[in-house]
Amino acid sequence: MALPITFLSDYGLADEFVGVVHAVIAHESPTARVIDLSHGVPRQSVLAGALMLARALPYAPPGVHLAVVDPEVGARRRAVALRTALDDRLLVGPDNGLLLPAADRFGWVTEAVEISHSPWRLEPVSATFHGRDLFAPVAARLAAGEALADAGTPLDPDELVRIELPKPRKGKQGRLTAHVMVIDGFGNVQLDARPGDLQAARIGHPVIIGAKGPSARYLRTFADAQPGELLLYEDAAGMLALAVNGGEAVAELGGVAPGDELRLNPS
Amino acid sequence: MALPITFLSDYGLADEFVGVVHAVIAHESPTARVIDLSHGVPRQSVLAGALMLARALPYAPPGVHLAVVDPEVGARRRAVALRTALDDRLLVGPDNGLLLPAADRFGWVTEAVEISHSPWRLEPVSATFHGRDLFAPVAARLAAGEALADAGTPLDPDELVRIELPKPRKGKQGRLTAHVMVIDGFGNVQLDARPGDLQAARIGHPVIIGAKGPSARYLRTFADAQPGELLLYEDAAGMLALAVNGGEAVAELGGVAPGDELRLNPS
Amino acid sequence: MALPITFLSDYGLADEFVGVVHAVIAHESPTARVIDLSHGVPRQSVLAGALMLARALPYAPPGVHLAVVDPEVGARRRAVALRTALDDRLLVGPDNGLLLPAADRFGWVTEAVEISHSPWRLEPVSATFHGRDLFAPVAARLAAGEALADAGTPLDPDELVRIELPKPRKGKQGRLTAHVMVIDGFGNVQLDARPGDLQAARIGHPVIIGAKGPSARYLRTFADAQPGELLLYEDAAGMLALAVNGGEAVAELGGVAPGDELRLNPS
Repeated sequence: MALPITFLSDYGLADEFVGVVHAVIAHESPTARVIDLSHGVPRQSVLAGALMLARALPYAPPGVHLAVVDPEVGARRRAVALRTALDDRLLVGPDNGLLLPAADRFGWVTEAVEISHSPWRLEPVSATFHGRDLFAPVAARLAAGEALADAGTPLDPDELVRIELPKPRKGKQGRLTAHVMVIDGFGNVQLDARPGDLQAARIGHPVIIGAKGPSARYLRTFADAQPGELLLYEDAAGMLALAVNGGEAVAELGGVAPGDELRLNPS
Repeated sequence: MALPITFLSDYGLADEFVGVVHAVIAHESPTARVIDLSHGVPRQSVLAGALMLARALPYAPPGVHLAVVDPEVGARRRAVALRTALDDRLLVGPDNGLLLPAADRFGWVTEAVEISHSPWRLEPVSATFHGRDLFAPVAARLAAGEALADAGTPLDPDELVRIELPKPRKGKQGRLTAHVMVIDGFGNVQLDARPGDLQAARIGHPVIIGAKGPSARYLRTFADAQPGELLLYEDAAGMLALAVNGGEAVAELGGVAPGDELRLNPS
Repeated sequence: MALPITFLSDYGLADEFVGVVHAVIAHESPTARVIDLSHGVPRQSVLAGALMLARALPYAPPGVHLAVVDPEVGARRRAVALRTALDDRLLVGPDNGLLLPAADRFGWVTEAVEISHSPWRLEPVSATFHGRDLFAPVAARLAAGEALADAGTPLDPDELVRIELPKPRKGKQGRLTAHVMVIDGFGNVQLDARPGDLQAARIGHPVIIGAKGPSARYLRTFADAQPGELLLYEDAAGMLALAVNGGEAVAELGGVAPGDELRLNPS
């Protein structure tokens, strides 16, 4: 029985890219089950993909975790397969920072392999679709039980590329400067701060969002707010987030985007 | 062998919500097959979700049917698992009316269980993502063959929340007032009336749509109309619907939306 | 063990159409694995669907290949199931040209069956959803190992409908007139010409796109270009394509659409 494979990318679902990766996996490892985590990562946003993968993987069964957000495909960036300390999970993807925040959820990386010239790759390898030609066959072979060491050449885990994750800043006079991390399809706005950061900054509630408002009460769930009311809450990933009951916080906040700073002020 | 699980929601596919529900199910019941019915229910529209589920379930194999459109998540609404009289189907979701129109297709509900405090839920249960923490593990355990009665505490099926479904009204002088139920991705407009309603109202054809038209012939399929012609037809769910051959009826009708009234008049 | 089924359509994912087809297949052939190639074919574009299927199928394991882009559904067009010379692949769909470019990748069609009145279809067959009532059950039965000849009545493969595929034209003075075939979700623009056509037309690089530019260098991959630079490259399907490093070629080219002519001129 093959290991399950999870798959996350920024390929979208309009084209056949995701389907072709599934096809290659089914070809190479016919019994491996593939679980699509999402293919809606904002195009070429390694940071957004890394955060999504880190949020999702703790809920997935141990196995092979394929992730592709790869603006440097075909260029000099390495392609890698990793093993984590806990759970023996295997992560496969480009070495551009995409995989490590998720790997960190399982301790650390105990083994890393550079797979750009993997014997398992599909020849000829295209310059622009390594999901199909490189990552899918490597993920499939690993799911089928082949050894990580056979996927390519050993690599020191300390050499893996890391991206810097945004962090909230505690400011003067009980202010907290957070960043927009994710805007989900319901228009909810996830920040890079946690409820504990609010407490540490001694910000009571309601909280004033930005210089002039609006204000938001800290509540447990959407339906605890009045219809149309903006609320601050702990989201399902444990992060502070903003929502509007029956509406979209992203619109209420004037169209914020991932990366934007948002000051949280005591009222 | 686990039962198959169908899954319908308004989560969309841009975020990782659907993927995480799949991941939890794979974790809890590794052999259960999951069939995505759709995750494109208009956000938070319990009515649209209930109609879609009722249209789709008769085509699905008996098993567990998970559905999540849940604007009151985390608030006082109940979470439930149900059994139907025919086929022994098990439905899992919020108790907000989403499940019953589909359950009615299989006779009636013979057993209902309140699952908000199910022993199978993932702790800690978040306030906003019961799909992941509550509904997915309950669906997975039921698919794996555990007993419905063990999912929570018994509930009288008569206490389940019902939503009112729109119905067409027969008006004076052979008029029929119908409502827009669904606009599909091809721009076809499904009504809440059936071909028999047209006949009962003694409306011949062409039919005048609205006060001043346009008019539509009643035809069997799109290609029976002239290119660009509006037609009225019996759709694949047995309902009256409007389409344009090679075009979009929703545009031809000036951008109608679900819930809108549409008068059908004899010409 | 059932054969794997691939599935491609223009149904989109907002409605339940794709889910219902999966449901029917699971009902008729519970162990068949279904691989979604894509459901994002531009609505009713048989040409775009045929090209996508031909690009994807060589990567899929042999089995049953279901494809539905069907503007003439319910009208006089035939419904067919085919067998290819190589790999014994079985293709199922409307006889409107959708299947043949993909079938050609596996030699030729050795056996064809008209399935409109297949004994396996779901009664009553709707006039507008043959994916559910006709194509899905036929694909499922074939995947379960039933004989192609039993799916319907024999048809001469030479009578199958073919569509004309666009081709580049070699013009005077080293010009090459190509057509836009596909615009993918990254904004990359695939042409109907190959790198060899450029060479045959003796066009060096940079290449001037259109009458007045812009110009594009021929490079191996996106990241070989400067940020924001337009490049011409061989895409993963072996075709000439245009991209912008970190941007969208479709925008850079002023919003070209599939079918548009694009002249490639020497600089």
